[in-house]
Amino acid sequence: MMAYKQVALIGLGLIASSVSHAIRRAGLPIRVSGHARTQKSREEARRLGLGDIFDTAAEAVAGADLVILCVPVGAMEGVAKEIAAHLKPGATITDVGSVKKAVVGAVAPYMPGHVHFIPGHPIAGTEHSGPASGFASLFDNRWWLLTPDRQTDPAALSNLEEFLLALGAKVDKMEAEHHDLVLAVTSHVPHLIAYTMVGVADDLSRVTETEVVNYSAAGFRDFTRIAASDPTMWRDVFLNNKTATLEILGRFTEELFALQRAIRTGDGDQLFDYFTHTRAIRRGIIEAGQDTAQPDFGRIVTRN
Amino acid sequence: MMAYKQVALIGLGLIASSVSHAIRRAGLPIRVSGHARTQKSREEARRLGLGDIFDTAAEAVAGADLVILCVPVGAMEGVAKEIAAHLKPGATITDVGSVKKAVVGAVAPYMPGHVHFIPGHPIAGTEHSGPASGFASLFDNRWWLLTPDRQTDPAALSNLEEFLLALGAKVDKMEAEHHDLVLAVTSHVPHLIAYTMVGVADDLSRVTETEVVNYSAAGFRDFTRIAASDPTMWRDVFLNNKTATLEILGRFTEELFALQRAIRTGDGDQLFDYFTHTRAIRRGIIEAGQDTAQPDFGRIVTRN
Repeated sequence: MMAYKQVALIGLGLIASSVSHAIRRAGLPIRVSGHARTQKSREEARRLGLGDIFDTAAEAVAGADLVILCVPVGAMEGVAKEIAAHLKPGATITDVGSVKKAVVGAVAPYMPGHVHFIPGHPIAGTEHSGPASGFASLFDNRWWLLTPDRQTDPAALSNLEEFLLALGAKVDKMEAEHHDLVLAVTSHVPHLIAYTMVGVADDLSRVTETEVVNYSAAGFRDFTRIAASDPTMWRDVFLNNKTATLEILGRFTEELFALQRAIRTGDGDQLFDYFTHTRAIRRGIIEAGQDTAQPDFGRIVTRN
Repeated sequence: MMAYKQVALIGLGLIASSVSHAIRRAGLPIRVSGHARTQKSREEARRLGLGDIFDTAAEAVAGADLVILCVPVGAMEGVAKEIAAHLKPGATITDVGSVKKAVVGAVAPYMPGHVHFIPGHPIAGTEHSGPASGFASLFDNRWWLLTPDRQTDPAALSNLEEFLLALGAKVDKMEAEHHDLVLAVTSHVPHLIAYTMVGVADDLSRVTETEVVNYSAAGFRDFTRIAASDPTMWRDVFLNNKTATLEILGRFTEELFALQRAIRTGDGDQLFDYFTHTRAIRRGIIEAGQDTAQPDFGRIVTRN
């Protein structure tokens, strides 16, 4: 028996619209209310039938048993301030921000004592954004991380978990600080590196843009996909996960310099050993169902 | 009218086996002969019916109008030495190595005056390797670069182009040195970076391998795909494209340090501008047909 009769989505991009679709797909008897900052997004959300869309966040959260903050990390504090006085007693508030310590710092101070704030982060997404980019299966077999603390109410936590499982996700729990380190490795630094590589290619006067584009199938295009993600979201991620990002970046450049030195000195054995080692991780990811073994991400449709 | 009656494939991995499949798919009246260094690969190639497989490269090239060297860059010189005396007068020799200047240096000195050596490089591949990994459509709509020089015979070049077009590829020509710079940007440095990032994640004691694997959908897994490519091939690429790789790596770390500084100082505007800019390149790649716009590389099969 689902504990929530109304779920409010604040911010109506890829994640929020996917939550709306997934609620409907699961056949849950839940009313979805929602709000987006721009009129354009609100109108698009109405056209897509994502729920009852309101012009203010305060109206959207009224009566909601669960409020999901789906705005960029930098906008969390403003939204928390805005909705605080309008939250239903006993409601659960969660978020989908890619960093957790900073969100706790931005949101928790505004939360009244009569609600439960349980930070969260679905490890799912695509390079597309906006209300029309969502789809019901986005969370299937993906992990939705929660970062409760010692004060978290066990019943509120278990209700939230039940809801997320119904969306198709798997749920795991960890400390906010550890979350930020794990994500710095699996997401934040990879994105920064991809953005950087694409920037380098774009800025190189001796190689034309046509050449970069035409010959991208040799590896580069995989970087451009993740470097096409939402700029606002990623700016906020880096500004709000500074410590872990800089730590992992430091490790990355250390390793890169070691490989660079191996290239310069012609140390083929070191290169070969390094490249052999990294294959094993790929196998682990495929076995865990977090990617497909189809060659080239299955880009090639016709097989002989 | 195809100029070649017999094509010899030396080395029977992903590229060679795909050439064999593509020749058959095109219905070309061409006999395929082939050789691989290991008995295991030769037996696999025979089982797959890739052509007439010989125990020596010398036997495989006998009578061939076109010889395609499909071995790692570091093995090119040995193969060139081995086949030189057995090449048919008037034959064309090409290769599929990912670097071109070093291959020219390794192969050209051994080529007799009565053959045409035209270096080449198909910008196509997957993360899989071996005789069984090939398929007929690998080259469809992909660029096959040739690096002829002023001595190249125009008729031999045009015959080779005609053949490559029949495999489904598009053909472009450039200087060997420029090729190596372009590929350093679109392929070699992206691969090195991906290998490095995967190595960092693997080596981090505070984040478990299970965490890396489970939460890889947030960006990291795209890196693991290209970091799962053949280690021998990539070792040889870096050892043989030292100059261009180190130049682009230098540019990359310069840019990365600038972004790292923006994170440290909290310069959100610089980050936002950078991340906005890189989106345009992605659009170019999709418009040029070198990737698909499907979210997440089309990993998500079920759409609502």
